[in-house]
Amino acid sequence: MKKLINDAESVVADALTGLAAAHPALRVDVEARVVWRADAPRVGKVALVSGGGSGHEPLHAGFVGYGMLDAACPGEIFTSPVPDQVVAATERVDGGAGVLHVIKNYTGDVMNFELAAELCAQQGMAVASVLVDDDVAVQDSLYTAGRRGTGATLFVEKIAGAVAEAGAPLAEATRVAGAVVARSRSFGIALTSCAVPAAGKPTFDLPETEVELGIGIHGEPGRTRAPLASARDLAAVAMDAVHGDLPLAGDLLVMVNGMGGTPLIELYIAFAEVEAYIRGKGARVARSLVGNYVTSLDMQGFSVTVCQLDDELTELWDAPVQTPSLRWGR
Amino acid sequence: MKKLINDAESVVADALTGLAAAHPALRVDVEARVVWRADAPRVGKVALVSGGGSGHEPLHAGFVGYGMLDAACPGEIFTSPVPDQVVAATERVDGGAGVLHVIKNYTGDVMNFELAAELCAQQGMAVASVLVDDDVAVQDSLYTAGRRGTGATLFVEKIAGAVAEAGAPLAEATRVAGAVVARSRSFGIALTSCAVPAAGKPTFDLPETEVELGIGIHGEPGRTRAPLASARDLAAVAMDAVHGDLPLAGDLLVMVNGMGGTPLIELYIAFAEVEAYIRGKGARVARSLVGNYVTSLDMQGFSVTVCQLDDELTELWDAPVQTPSLRWGR
Repeated sequence: MKKLINDAESVVADALTGLAAAHPALRVDVEARVVWRADAPRVGKVALVSGGGSGHEPLHAGFVGYGMLDAACPGEIFTSPVPDQVVAATERVDGGAGVLHVIKNYTGDVMNFELAAELCAQQGMAVASVLVDDDVAVQDSLYTAGRRGTGATLFVEKIAGAVAEAGAPLAEATRVAGAVVARSRSFGIALTSCAVPAAGKPTFDLPETEVELGIGIHGEPGRTRAPLASARDLAAVAMDAVHGDLPLAGDLLVMVNGMGGTPLIELYIAFAEVEAYIRGKGARVARSLVGNYVTSLDMQGFSVTVCQLDDELTELWDAPVQTPSLRWGR
Repeated sequence: MKKLINDAESVVADALTGLAAAHPALRVDVEARVVWRADAPRVGKVALVSGGGSGHEPLHAGFVGYGMLDAACPGEIFTSPVPDQVVAATERVDGGAGVLHVIKNYTGDVMNFELAAELCAQQGMAVASVLVDDDVAVQDSLYTAGRRGTGATLFVEKIAGAVAEAGAPLAEATRVAGAVVARSRSFGIALTSCAVPAAGKPTFDLPETEVELGIGIHGEPGRTRAPLASARDLAAVAMDAVHGDLPLAGDLLVMVNGMGGTPLIELYIAFAEVEAYIRGKGARVARSLVGNYVTSLDMQGFSVTVCQLDDELTELWDAPVQTPSLRWGR
């Protein structure tokens, strides 16, 4: 295991230092671990705050900016942000119209965001939340009661971010965020384990001839192991799982997401298979993303996230966005 | 070595199929291996064509679109495109104002683009070329006479693409492209080897405790091997090499580029060190890119590319661009 780092203990701080240096439109408090839009708070605009463990970059800090998140609070590697951190992020961006917390469904995240929301409420801030639980792989798992929150988090942040940018009230942003969750499903497959810097070794052992089906974004176990197969067969496993839970129909927003260590050429190969599968079911890829967006450190593998679009969601997806890692239309 | 592929023989075709499915603004001839803008040819606009071996994604096909390349011709993995392919790409986008070929300095690429240019000239097309040779690591290497062409290729394609989009004539686009080459330098470091799918094993062996300094983007040898060190020390090695060749001064465009298998969190750590180094020399990072842009399949590692900006180049860099992997301002 080789890492391009200075010290396992300073990984998050060092990366935030780089993020700040690279993106003048962001403000970064490396000490407090908060990243926010330089133009926040915007009076009268609903603010979006998300956060979670680090190691999933660009999620979440790479999605802070116009049309998406107002702030992100990155925890240590694979570790929930602490409540004080969430409160600090919320305070920094609250423009008086309320704040929506976007929470991935992990026990620690849920607990810390809930506690933070109570503290914010005591200070008079209006805080709502949406819980993302799109991963169909397992019910209950290491770190999670119920389904895990993975790739759909990006969809929620983008689409609810567009609603907020358009000036909608908190209840409306919350409603739309919930609609995205209800319409989204994910499934991930690992070819290799990730390795946490402080651990200094791979999180789990995966033989050279096997893959883990239904992997979590922290290397949590999936449904089962299986022999390494073609991109076509692996895409079919992922899509069978998604389709079995929420039948593919109509216009879809589809992300083929790399887990951090898989090169783009392979992700396009997987996307070709996913698109063909969807076409075979009579549905259509109307919008797509291919790349490393919701990662698991250096893990090799991919996940597929599908969202059933309607006219409203399509328009919100297409709305301008200007963040370090998602940019278009402006 | 695990790959998310169907077959080692169909990697390029399968990835191009995915690229076509994901990006409706592109046209892709999977058979002929040509990717071009759906709106090409544009009458009266100088067209930019680049190409080279596959395995460096998103370079080049991910940079086809408004404000950048008009066409790309991807060869097999780490293999130059054949002359017919370059001719086909040139024909498809020639709008009568001439075509600029952007060529990375590798013997095969140079030879095949030169032959293609002759064939194009015989057909009455006006073709000019720019040779990118930014890598300061080595003089002459496997595949190359002189310096290798690496990360600066992205800078040339973006900046010359903006000139062409603005309606400049071929001579002007060629001049600006040459200015970018003259002002740009790169240096790369590998933590691990890449593995070519058809080979089925890593290209070279690199012990768990060592890195390769001055690596090429096909895994060609660099200057030397050294013990694995901190991001700070590795960044200093890269920057010393760049600074020793073209002293850092004034406003710089800086890319910290991942080799394909290095996650974004590590690239931001490296960027923080590169930025601090540059500041220490009294120069300034005026514009930056952090991410996987000019890759070497699944290699772990990074490269730094620096370009000395002036007002003209800064304005051209900032101009709108709309491609699969580089997008802003529109």
